[in-house]
Amino acid sequence: MAINQLRRDPLTGRWTVTVMDEVNLQELARGQKSRNHAETLGAISCEYCEGQEKATPPEIVAFRHPNSPPNGPGWRIRVVPEKAPVLQIYGDLNNRGVGIYDVLDGIGAHEVVVEHPKHFVTLPDMTDDNVREILEAYRARIADLKRDTRFRYILVHKNYGEGAGSTNAHSFSHIIATPITPLRVKEELVNAMHYFQFKERCMLCDIVRQELKQQERIIIDDGHFVALSPFAARIPFEVWILPQKHETFFEQNTRYEQLAKTLKQILARLRKVLNDPHYVLVIHSGPNIEAGRFRGYWRTLEQDFHWHIEITPRLRGYTSFEIGSGFNINSIAPERAAVILRDGRLA
Amino acid sequence: MAINQLRRDPLTGRWTVTVMDEVNLQELARGQKSRNHAETLGAISCEYCEGQEKATPPEIVAFRHPNSPPNGPGWRIRVVPEKAPVLQIYGDLNNRGVGIYDVLDGIGAHEVVVEHPKHFVTLPDMTDDNVREILEAYRARIADLKRDTRFRYILVHKNYGEGAGSTNAHSFSHIIATPITPLRVKEELVNAMHYFQFKERCMLCDIVRQELKQQERIIIDDGHFVALSPFAARIPFEVWILPQKHETFFEQNTRYEQLAKTLKQILARLRKVLNDPHYVLVIHSGPNIEAGRFRGYWRTLEQDFHWHIEITPRLRGYTSFEIGSGFNINSIAPERAAVILRDGRLA
Repeated sequence: MAINQLRRDPLTGRWTVTVMDEVNLQELARGQKSRNHAETLGAISCEYCEGQEKATPPEIVAFRHPNSPPNGPGWRIRVVPEKAPVLQIYGDLNNRGVGIYDVLDGIGAHEVVVEHPKHFVTLPDMTDDNVREILEAYRARIADLKRDTRFRYILVHKNYGEGAGSTNAHSFSHIIATPITPLRVKEELVNAMHYFQFKERCMLCDIVRQELKQQERIIIDDGHFVALSPFAARIPFEVWILPQKHETFFEQNTRYEQLAKTLKQILARLRKVLNDPHYVLVIHSGPNIEAGRFRGYWRTLEQDFHWHIEITPRLRGYTSFEIGSGFNINSIAPERAAVILRDGRLA
Repeated sequence: MAINQLRRDPLTGRWTVTVMDEVNLQELARGQKSRNHAETLGAISCEYCEGQEKATPPEIVAFRHPNSPPNGPGWRIRVVPEKAPVLQIYGDLNNRGVGIYDVLDGIGAHEVVVEHPKHFVTLPDMTDDNVREILEAYRARIADLKRDTRFRYILVHKNYGEGAGSTNAHSFSHIIATPITPLRVKEELVNAMHYFQFKERCMLCDIVRQELKQQERIIIDDGHFVALSPFAARIPFEVWILPQKHETFFEQNTRYEQLAKTLKQILARLRKVLNDPHYVLVIHSGPNIEAGRFRGYWRTLEQDFHWHIEITPRLRGYTSFEIGSGFNINSIAPERAAVILRDGRLA
């Protein structure tokens, strides 16, 4: 198997994982892949179900009953390596130039958090303790992966439903460790840093303060976290959840019990109001400051960046205007979405 | 009708058009819109067909037989205003702050270039002259819209097929004038400017030189334009077409006849090799330097930026990894895609 390459487009600054192995071009041309995905989504059990533990690579960590041995039944949450990772764990980055271009070897980690032993149980159906343990599993994996200083960023995300890119009805999330900071994350880090240089305040602390004062876009204020419709929400019913007290890293948090409750409530309301929408959930947190080069660059990181969760329902595909222009169009003013999600009903 | 707002997310710098009118939430929750689109795509005629001229707003410009009157049959290409524009043409930007946030009124222009009088004729089926005239229609509209200094950027794009966001099988493209530079465009302009500051050469001139020397990713070299698989292609079979001689603005070009031939050839090969794939075509060109504030900022624009066309086939939806991480995954190395598109067959 050839090692994949991480290639940087010098014009946009975006990185692409370029698969160097041969793929089946006939399938690609016929759109075969999407049909296979639909079949997987229709299945009533999978390799993530309790009893199928031997079908996945050996578990990295699991929350299980005290007397149950690893890689067998008796667990509540399992973290396993992704079977077909696009980034591989062994090797060096081998950072190099090809004339004007930049290339790295595709090194990284890709793990799957299996969130429940049963196939069709989704987050809003789980107990508060289940959800809290999922958040604690994220924390444990982020902390562990950050000890590998080849990894600059640990990205935790979850895709619910086919429209959000998921290919399996079993509830799970992804943890990906990357040797470079994804551009989408870097934009946020740089904007937050510039804001801090200008104002000497954290941008997201200022947002929390303004939102709590205006009350127009607040959905839930539980005293520790705030769930809100962001002012410039990209798509209808986008929700952010932020700690009200300044915190840079998700893994610094100590109130997962409260966060689990608020997160569950938001997902339950989205499900009720929007008829079980597909969604993407991404944790935006500070990068791995232990990874060599960061120490100098993100000098004020601990003061300027503020972790948060972004949830974006996928109610429709992108329109031609959005694909072409790069502007999003949000057909529901965030102030209106907030009222609907506060009340828990459409009207 | 309330004026839509252009809202800027301070964390990412992205702009969203926020629709301030009421929409049908029941439809949105049920995904009704995508079903309506599928019906439109299945139609065998539409308001863009010859004979239906009264169904569109009056034409802005048309290429038509000398004796045919406006807004009747006898045309080869018609440019008309989009019936349901998200940005409206009248009014001022009314640039303002709302606490920490930035808002503009949703001012802009949205025009449709109807590329052929008949419903099912697509670009590869047209004559070279048809395609040349389409490019000349783009040029005419860009030049005209740039005289309105409220508009910072004129974006020309085309979506072919439902997977690319198109809702109509009739061949047409969009011309959108925006009061701000889309972030995706701005990233390119800034990167090209930084490259020029460092190297005192145009980045895309350097790319053209390196590609012509390496020959690994070249698809067509017609002496004036080069069509290539970009080194860090984001998705399988992405193609860029660039003028070999430095040019900042698409509307500066004088060789539309040659460009039409190369563009048609590329689209015909994509159709043949990939089984008529959906695609998005975007012209990346310099912004409206007459729009006030640009004069100072893009000081070296004419030396550092180089217009080009980007064509991205949409063979599949994004995977969960891509949605979550912001990295693209390209399963075909660009060197391999170039060989296939050079030969015009998959093997």
